[in-house]
Amino acid sequence: MTYQFNAETFAARLDQDAEFATRAMDTLLPIDNGPEARLMEAVRYAALLGGKRVRPYLALHTAALFNVDPKCALRVAAAIEMVHCYSLVHDDLPAMDDDDLRRGQPTCHIKCDEATAILAGDALLTRAFEVLAEDGTHQDASVRIELVKELSKSAGALGMVGGQMLDLVAHQHDLDMNEIARLQRMKTGGLINFACISGGILGKASDHALNKLHGYAHDLGLAFQIVDDLLDVTQSTEDLGKRAGKDEEQGKATFVSLMGVENAREQAQVLRDQAIAHLDVFEEKANPLRDMAHFVVNRVS
Amino acid sequence: MTYQFNAETFAARLDQDAEFATRAMDTLLPIDNGPEARLMEAVRYAALLGGKRVRPYLALHTAALFNVDPKCALRVAAAIEMVHCYSLVHDDLPAMDDDDLRRGQPTCHIKCDEATAILAGDALLTRAFEVLAEDGTHQDASVRIELVKELSKSAGALGMVGGQMLDLVAHQHDLDMNEIARLQRMKTGGLINFACISGGILGKASDHALNKLHGYAHDLGLAFQIVDDLLDVTQSTEDLGKRAGKDEEQGKATFVSLMGVENAREQAQVLRDQAIAHLDVFEEKANPLRDMAHFVVNRVS
Repeated sequence: MTYQFNAETFAARLDQDAEFATRAMDTLLPIDNGPEARLMEAVRYAALLGGKRVRPYLALHTAALFNVDPKCALRVAAAIEMVHCYSLVHDDLPAMDDDDLRRGQPTCHIKCDEATAILAGDALLTRAFEVLAEDGTHQDASVRIELVKELSKSAGALGMVGGQMLDLVAHQHDLDMNEIARLQRMKTGGLINFACISGGILGKASDHALNKLHGYAHDLGLAFQIVDDLLDVTQSTEDLGKRAGKDEEQGKATFVSLMGVENAREQAQVLRDQAIAHLDVFEEKANPLRDMAHFVVNRVS
Repeated sequence: MTYQFNAETFAARLDQDAEFATRAMDTLLPIDNGPEARLMEAVRYAALLGGKRVRPYLALHTAALFNVDPKCALRVAAAIEMVHCYSLVHDDLPAMDDDDLRRGQPTCHIKCDEATAILAGDALLTRAFEVLAEDGTHQDASVRIELVKELSKSAGALGMVGGQMLDLVAHQHDLDMNEIARLQRMKTGGLINFACISGGILGKASDHALNKLHGYAHDLGLAFQIVDDLLDVTQSTEDLGKRAGKDEEQGKATFVSLMGVENAREQAQVLRDQAIAHLDVFEEKANPLRDMAHFVVNRVS
């Protein structure tokens, strides 16, 4: 098999899939009437504003490995992105990271207000579980409940929420490399992992195939975070669409502060190759996932 | 059938069931290690501090109508109370109702800090879905997914979260009686309704039986809120264990401000009797639910 990464083709596909995911969320998060309409306005602001939609892409293309009905995969992709968007809304709050800018736009609590932003996050998380539970996601209840179980594990106290807590207290502890890797696995790795295995769950993949997806997700997630840390150091706020230089300002230990820029860059490339190696079993079908590994390491925002 | 409410017997049973629910949550929300331990400390503070545990009681005793395994019912009861506790933690935040006191103790963000409280709420909500999804809750995946679906509906933008949004903007609109009833149905009614039908879902109840439970939950929920509004006016902060006189202070329209104390009291009694009338079909077995209707209207805190 010959494979080569084509950045242009990939960019077009990522854009197209992002559009699919956004449209699916648009449908699944309908506009509301009544005096409480501002809740759904905030929910839609947080969810529909844009973003690369990396997690939906992963869900869609792991599902494609197992010939899952794209309509089902798209619902799962949308649910995952809802959880990601909720986490951004809550993480950006004044009591947490206190960020004003996200995806180049005012954050949810700046655009709306703090109370509405908290509730919008709550509503997004709740809706994500509802979408997974609804019949349209898969005909088998056992598949849907497996999705709910794995999402809640990835997003909860031992996953994303616990990772954010760890991140908030990180400046009080001098985290070493292992602890930073653990923080990353919990905070961003959990949801990336769920996105990667969700296609396998939908497609009733073998344990062997699921393990390969876990391996890919693990290395991809770690590479993703190392590059995030690199971009925080090397890019401007304007290029990132979110505040740059934050980690250093807060005196936070990161992969980059511990390894240095050059080593971190190398490490990200090693992880990219490792991630791709897990995909051999899926042959050509996994090319979109190989592309993503290249993109994650090459990206500049 | 002769039935009479015995306040003392009921109080003992409510206490005992509250203890069961608290112990179940204690087990389901284990203490954590590592630098992120404060997250689970906050989660446990919010969940285990006490409270009447009205919703777990409803879940346990509607499940008993259908001879559901009490171990399964207790997991559902605990999940519902986790959602209730998360909603209290978020509603108490400075950006929302800004309350310092809950169940006679400092609220979660006072005891811990605001960021931790937000994350503790998020973790509780996520864990509730996980508990419902886990195998121990029911052997049939279709039953578990039905529970997830109904909980997310009750707790989301068209239920509890939407109701809280409505409550926050209520002072900007002069709500009439219908709008207040709608607010209540969403904000507190949704979760009470889920608690009441959860036993029916676990027990694969007929549509007829589920409709009766819906009817009971509707009238009970409304009575519960009217009495809440009454207590806010008539009781002290000390007796309530939370800030009293809040509604009037905020110039908020409530059942009591629109109907007056005497009419509100009468209305609560009418609703109690209506709630009880829905239970005829369950005969003696429903006595614990009849008791709850009496208690809700008689309570002084």
